[in-house]
Amino acid sequence: MTDFAIRRATADDLPAIVAMLADDPLGARQESPDDPAPYRAAFERLDRDPNQRLVVAVQDGRTVGTLQLTMIPGLSRRGATRSIIEGVRIHADVRGGGLGTQLIEWAIEESRRAGCALVQLTSDATRTDAHRFYERLGFEASHLGFKLPLD
Amino acid sequence: MTDFAIRRATADDLPAIVAMLADDPLGARQESPDDPAPYRAAFERLDRDPNQRLVVAVQDGRTVGTLQLTMIPGLSRRGATRSIIEGVRIHADVRGGGLGTQLIEWAIEESRRAGCALVQLTSDATRTDAHRFYERLGFEASHLGFKLPLD
Repeated sequence: MTDFAIRRATADDLPAIVAMLADDPLGARQESPDDPAPYRAAFERLDRDPNQRLVVAVQDGRTVGTLQLTMIPGLSRRGATRSIIEGVRIHADVRGGGLGTQLIEWAIEESRRAGCALVQLTSDATRTDAHRFYERLGFEASHLGFKLPLD
Repeated sequence: MTDFAIRRATADDLPAIVAMLADDPLGARQESPDDPAPYRAAFERLDRDPNQRLVVAVQDGRTVGTLQLTMIPGLSRRGATRSIIEGVRIHADVRGGGLGTQLIEWAIEESRRAGCALVQLTSDATRTDAHRFYERLGFEASHLGFKLPLD
């Protein structure tokens, strides 16, 4: 087993990323891995946005992890930029091998490089294992995350 | 008393916005209203980012509310774009007058216009009045919000 390499995602990574999004107890019903068109369009929007970092983790040539980091400028906290982590997924074959930690640590370091004052994320209230994981990495569950789906 | 008008913020609104950010039990220590330079620099970053909508609410020529809406493209949910509401502040003089509802409803409608599938926000766990307010507007507190300040 070799280490994981984290690099910027390309369009060629999309099938592997979408398969990981669909292989999730909470996300499966919301995905359509057999219809790549909406994912390709979304990838184009991500790829041309300088505040977006969509990355993948690769091991032995296989795409086995992904994470999306968004830089959000703002006025509060003396004009601080914050980053938001979304879309963290680890392939079932490599879970427990430390890749989640490596991806989040990458996101924290990339946020520092970009001058962010804060890294934030939300996690479904039912994912208690994920909550312990983020707390071990230094995050504090200080907020509630509210969502409103639009029709 | 006249209605509130919601419009895009300009650099001239910055002193009023920063005063509202500083007039907050949780935010006061993090702000420096007497030093406008970092806020001006952050406003420039916001103003040139096409995924950002920084708005103010104006009543009788006074800037009495603000909200920041960020559009975030993504791959999950079939390539859905989501929006994030941050920096909601209402001037103490007009609290209870319905402006909070009007600002959040504006953000929801603007998110629909931009094609978002989801609107999300986080609220400090201690702000129980705010939680009831967001639930009345249709939001569900389905997630925990994790934050990690960077040095």
